Amino acid sequence: MAENGARRIRLGMVGGGAGAFIGYVHRIAARLDGDYELVAGALSSDPDRAASSARDLGIAPERSYADWAAMARAEAARPDGIDAVSIVTPNHVHFGPAKAFLEAGIHVICDKPLTATLEEARALADVRPAKGARFLLTHNYTGYPLIRQARELVASGALGTLRVVQAEYAQDWLTEAAETTGSKQAEWRTDPARSGAGGAIGDIGTHAYNLLRFVSGLKTQAVAADLSSFVPGRRLDDNVNIMLRFEGGARGMLWASQVAVGNENGLKLRIYGDKAGLEWGQEDPNRMWFTEFGKPRQLLTRGGAIDGPAAGAMGVRVPAGHPEGYLEAFATLYSQFAKVIRGDGDEVAGLLPTLADGVEGVTFIAAAVKSSRDDSRWVRFSEV
Amino acid sequence: MAENGARRIRLGMVGGGAGAFIGYVHRIAARLDGDYELVAGALSSDPDRAASSARDLGIAPERSYADWAAMARAEAARPDGIDAVSIVTPNHVHFGPAKAFLEAGIHVICDKPLTATLEEARALADVRPAKGARFLLTHNYTGYPLIRQARELVASGALGTLRVVQAEYAQDWLTEAAETTGSKQAEWRTDPARSGAGGAIGDIGTHAYNLLRFVSGLKTQAVAADLSSFVPGRRLDDNVNIMLRFEGGARGMLWASQVAVGNENGLKLRIYGDKAGLEWGQEDPNRMWFTEFGKPRQLLTRGGAIDGPAAGAMGVRVPAGHPEGYLEAFATLYSQFAKVIRGDGDEVAGLLPTLADGVEGVTFIAAAVKSSRDDSRWVRFSEV
Amino acid sequence: MAENGARRIRLGMVGGGAGAFIGYVHRIAARLDGDYELVAGALSSDPDRAASSARDLGIAPERSYADWAAMARAEAARPDGIDAVSIVTPNHVHFGPAKAFLEAGIHVICDKPLTATLEEARALADVRPAKGARFLLTHNYTGYPLIRQARELVASGALGTLRVVQAEYAQDWLTEAAETTGSKQAEWRTDPARSGAGGAIGDIGTHAYNLLRFVSGLKTQAVAADLSSFVPGRRLDDNVNIMLRFEGGARGMLWASQVAVGNENGLKLRIYGDKAGLEWGQEDPNRMWFTEFGKPRQLLTRGGAIDGPAAGAMGVRVPAGHPEGYLEAFATLYSQFAKVIRGDGDEVAGLLPTLADGVEGVTFIAAAVKSSRDDSRWVRFSEV
Amino acid sequence: MAENGARRIRLGMVGGGAGAFIGYVHRIAARLDGDYELVAGALSSDPDRAASSARDLGIAPERSYADWAAMARAEAARPDGIDAVSIVTPNHVHFGPAKAFLEAGIHVICDKPLTATLEEARALADVRPAKGARFLLTHNYTGYPLIRQARELVASGALGTLRVVQAEYAQDWLTEAAETTGSKQAEWRTDPARSGAGGAIGDIGTHAYNLLRFVSGLKTQAVAADLSSFVPGRRLDDNVNIMLRFEGGARGMLWASQVAVGNENGLKLRIYGDKAGLEWGQEDPNRMWFTEFGKPRQLLTRGGAIDGPAAGAMGVRVPAGHPEGYLEAFATLYSQFAKVIRGDGDEVAGLLPTLADGVEGVTFIAAAVKSSRDDSRWVRFSEV
Repeated sequence: MAENGARRIRLGMVGGGAGAFIGYVHRIAARLDGDYELVAGALSSDPDRAASSARDLGIAPERSYADWAAMARAEAARPDGIDAVSIVTPNHVHFGPAKAFLEAGIHVICDKPLTATLEEARALADVRPAKGARFLLTHNYTGYPLIRQARELVASGALGTLRVVQAEYAQDWLTEAAETTGSKQAEWRTDPARSGAGGAIGDIGTHAYNLLRFVSGLKTQAVAADLSSFVPGRRLDDNVNIMLRFEGGARGMLWASQVAVGNENGLKLRIYGDKAGLEWGQEDPNRMWFTEFGKPRQLLTRGGAIDGPAAGAMGVRVPAGHPEGYLEAFATLYSQFAKVIRGDGDEVAGLLPTLADGVEGVTFIAAAVKSSRDDSRWVRFSEV
Repeated sequence: MAENGARRIRLGMVGGGAGAFIGYVHRIAARLDGDYELVAGALSSDPDRAASSARDLGIAPERSYADWAAMARAEAARPDGIDAVSIVTPNHVHFGPAKAFLEAGIHVICDKPLTATLEEARALADVRPAKGARFLLTHNYTGYPLIRQARELVASGALGTLRVVQAEYAQDWLTEAAETTGSKQAEWRTDPARSGAGGAIGDIGTHAYNLLRFVSGLKTQAVAADLSSFVPGRRLDDNVNIMLRFEGGARGMLWASQVAVGNENGLKLRIYGDKAGLEWGQEDPNRMWFTEFGKPRQLLTRGGAIDGPAAGAMGVRVPAGHPEGYLEAFATLYSQFAKVIRGDGDEVAGLLPTLADGVEGVTFIAAAVKSSRDDSRWVRFSEV
Repeated sequence: MAENGARRIRLGMVGGGAGAFIGYVHRIAARLDGDYELVAGALSSDPDRAASSARDLGIAPERSYADWAAMARAEAARPDGIDAVSIVTPNHVHFGPAKAFLEAGIHVICDKPLTATLEEARALADVRPAKGARFLLTHNYTGYPLIRQARELVASGALGTLRVVQAEYAQDWLTEAAETTGSKQAEWRTDPARSGAGGAIGDIGTHAYNLLRFVSGLKTQAVAADLSSFVPGRRLDDNVNIMLRFEGGARGMLWASQVAVGNENGLKLRIYGDKAGLEWGQEDPNRMWFTEFGKPRQLLTRGGAIDGPAAGAMGVRVPAGHPEGYLEAFATLYSQFAKVIRGDGDEVAGLLPTLADGVEGVTFIAAAVKSSRDDSRWVRFSEV
Repeated sequence: MAENGARRIRLGMVGGGAGAFIGYVHRIAARLDGDYELVAGALSSDPDRAASSARDLGIAPERSYADWAAMARAEAARPDGIDAVSIVTPNHVHFGPAKAFLEAGIHVICDKPLTATLEEARALADVRPAKGARFLLTHNYTGYPLIRQARELVASGALGTLRVVQAEYAQDWLTEAAETTGSKQAEWRTDPARSGAGGAIGDIGTHAYNLLRFVSGLKTQAVAADLSSFVPGRRLDDNVNIMLRFEGGARGMLWASQVAVGNENGLKLRIYGDKAGLEWGQEDPNRMWFTEFGKPRQLLTRGGAIDGPAAGAMGVRVPAGHPEGYLEAFATLYSQFAKVIRGDGDEVAGLLPTLADGVEGVTFIAAAVKSSRDDSRWVRFSEV
């Protein structure tokens, strides 16, 4: 992983100015394995904040832009222009820059969900990238080594035919009306204009949905959803109950909540086939239960005893017992995307979330919202 | 708890002959606190097995009956006849004996679900017990001390207004077609003639449903269910996905499965209000998470540090750190029902599952089956 | 287990009057499997308390005795006299009744440690029981099914040659001077006259020591101990640090504490050989870790998937996932001792703690106390 | 943390060529927060490996040195010479470069233990650094946020007067003779010429010792040790049993093992005072138990609900529930040492392991080895 003598990829960033959470995370992820160097940015729509943030990050003043459109134009024109850009803005500002940079031949790393609306998502899927520009959607939880191993176990047939999937993502930070008491994170995530039609379902439900799809490989047939908004005055859902039907007959449930008191970031996935079962939780990401029917439960560990996929693809950095976490999983997406950019991505092909995954995520949101509005009837993705 | 000098209650048993699981459990539960003495039985429909089982259990030959009807008549007529009877037969043999013994003025302790059909359940509710005979439904999981404490916490307002409930009951013992390979337990539990219209939903789903009702006190408005039968040839459901709506706006999900590989007896309950949340699992029953919003998670322990309801009502026998389990919880129902029988049950009033709870459980099964057959639409209890 | 048609064993009890903890536990243990009937007692040295306790327990007035000596004489003379007696008094009142009942030909069930002094222990070992009377020491933790399985795994060679043992028993109930604020339990357990030379080491250290010996089969060579008394005014140790050397070269540590805040009854055992390791904790007694070198950790469960010793010997009552606890483990000692009394104990031979185990436990206390007084030098058992 | 516009610190590295474990870790730690840039190295004593490793890491050929002495001279003479150096060689090659770079006025980041011998350690303590060069010993586990919080809790008096400390560090990777089957890591760590007089005690025992000192603040009075070497042919200890006495009367135990099958990197710390207790384990580093006497156990989380020290000092990067791990803790030492180097280290003063801590660690090794050789008698640090 990295440290291979290759030139660092020149990176730009849209959004992520001082005080932003996810932009900071993207920068650590970009640095961790040494594959990227941040050299340009349109870090904020507020010019002063953009400039001071750029200064703090060591971005040259002339490469700190007032807006992403100018940045895309200027960087595409520079001989030392950025190779790739990270888009870390609220959902409603994903489509514009993603389209612009792809058309400028600049690789795009974009936060999830893909866009604020299904229309935008589909339009983005139709964009023709210049110069073979590639796209990475940062469904970062797919970067956890044990999630990779889970996917490998399912694909290998170790679980047999899948029957039951249980996905959940429980948080409690929106238990009270944080959007009215100064939390910027809460403000835009509960604002339909900036988030789109989904609240919890877009913010965290799509992560859970993507993860179950990534690991199980199951194709969704229909969803029946019951979305709620418990906090008075809140305009988007803060609790999501969903039943799922998959092609081939498997069944699932997905629960996402931002009002489940006592949960910090409880993303969990459980998958059961006719031969074995798997259970994993994001807050304890270095351990995963794997049980073959009729045998004792086994606790697999990241990098621990068991044959698995190549460490390179899994992204294991340090030995078992030395916990890796959220930032390492995020960084694995960045460093493996660096391989793709350099034309050396065969080993990780198929592991990195794509634009198509992003469209499916936004479709999932739309279908769930539609089902919930229609008294929880089963809604197929083709209906939205 | 017991040991109070009172005469032991004379107990009879219907079902529970050699090899039966739940009959054995009921006998331990009856003995543990010293409140009962088993003196009569119609232990099996097979006369030889009935007789030899009675002999092993020290039941006098003349009080080992060929059938429950004869037993009800004869015991009611004896001056030293049984005070109470335990009915531990498959579901389709609950209604008959329960009616007979109640009408004979003998207290009834009956396993769940109440009956195999909703018609029977309602008919049983209409029975007029003689001599004030009382009824106990052994939803044994309500006997766990921390479940009692959870109920108390909810009732006290410590959780605030309830919003979200997640109940689940995951097992894996029916992952393969055990009903075709000699498991008597599997045979009747997957046989509509003996179990009724519900498989997993009746066997374990009702436990999960009862528990969430017991603790939360929420009243159910409607259910939307998706029942599946994954094992080829199986005639009843072995996986149950349900969404719930409660009066007042709370929402819930309930998952019950007998094909979730790696799960032994995974009954879990999570309840979230606008002030605090609770999480408890039956396989680790001496610990419960309680978190007030914005404070650290607390691990409450059975009998441990915290103010709680009176130990007598909770049924704590030994100090914190000395684990009590399934049998103790079961025994608590027995010993507290003994108090009720002796007219000393005020402290435990409202804690013991009733015939009405049984009717609701069977209603729940019927509504879920109906919803599942009707493409998972929301079904109110009043519709079945 | 029980329920086999055999006559119930007539049981007497010395100590265990109203308010006593361990006497109550012994009575539940005696009842649970149906093998015993309590018919006589010398329940308290306080005559009123003895009489009222007997009445509450349904003991006939003429079989409620003022002292154990009278009880031994009278019961031995009755044609329907007790078969066995449970001695549940403080340590300094073990020797007298144990000797008297054994010499009266009555089986003895005695709480641990065996006696308050090594002299008494050795004298008891020299007693000649009449009529083949047998002795059971209630090191109850050996009754846990997984502890039995751990012993079986070690004996089978599954762990290879043992190298390292870590035993600990952490509590916190004596963090403050409970012996001065009305706790009778604390009073006698911190009183050298009633407990002997050891405080925590006698009360809980002997349990941990017995358990490691029971499971590992290792023979102790020497101990180096550092005993402390942290609470001002306390006359016996409340924290025990010990290093152990075993024959064959294995090494161990044992920590027992009654001032470790946050621990309720934390008895834990970890054993490592050159092939595999085992880890078990009493507060989560239905699960045990077993790891073969180079393979994933396995979580064995009581009654769960794995070949093991016969369920009869292990004492499993209910299926995996239905937790059994402290009382069941205790009851297993009682019901298996019933088999021994009835001459049907072959299957459990070697599993029940003996008088010799009791002598070794008191020797362990004496050696540790001597080592601690002698600046923690290594002390062999032959030196005390 | 970082991202503050300051110039990146120019870093060199001694050791850490291709295939090395800890050098790779140091490089990630140096990159993660963006405070360092690796520009020079003496990466291997093998010239070819040194050169190719330098190339892979993007180090200019003229700054890839054949040995550390040449590197110290040359870099000190360059106007753009390195500001700091990381020493990541085996223990016996710590003293030489540390002395050379300190005397050349270059800040030193050195892996633990400080040196292979106590003589070297003391000699290093006597070195006079030029130009105010500072020293950081990478006892990386002190960088975990909850360890910082634990230290803060102890210092605040929340635990009261400390009584009992239990530290342990269990691994299993040396269960077999890995040093004879090609593991370079195993080779030097079991070789007295390269590791010094301690095996497990130096490699991991010093981490456990340092951690208990860091958190508790207790001063060691004496140790009584029993060191073993279980694997045939092994020349250094692979299992360490130690009892500790602290000034003021607190007592402790420390267990370190590399043959405890089933343990990957099990560093754990438990501390008990007369008011409260703390428990933390490195494999689950985002959670810590804190229990006040008589109250329920609380599960504190990294960045979670509770008042704590400033996030800057604790090194929290992402919110609670987003696990940080080994690399982040390591990186925190690097980024906070960057603050010290820049003269902005007041907030973290006292949190970073020093040369004096290194001397104490080597003293601890020497005292334990001496005690073990002397039949485990208590040895004071002043005796070695």
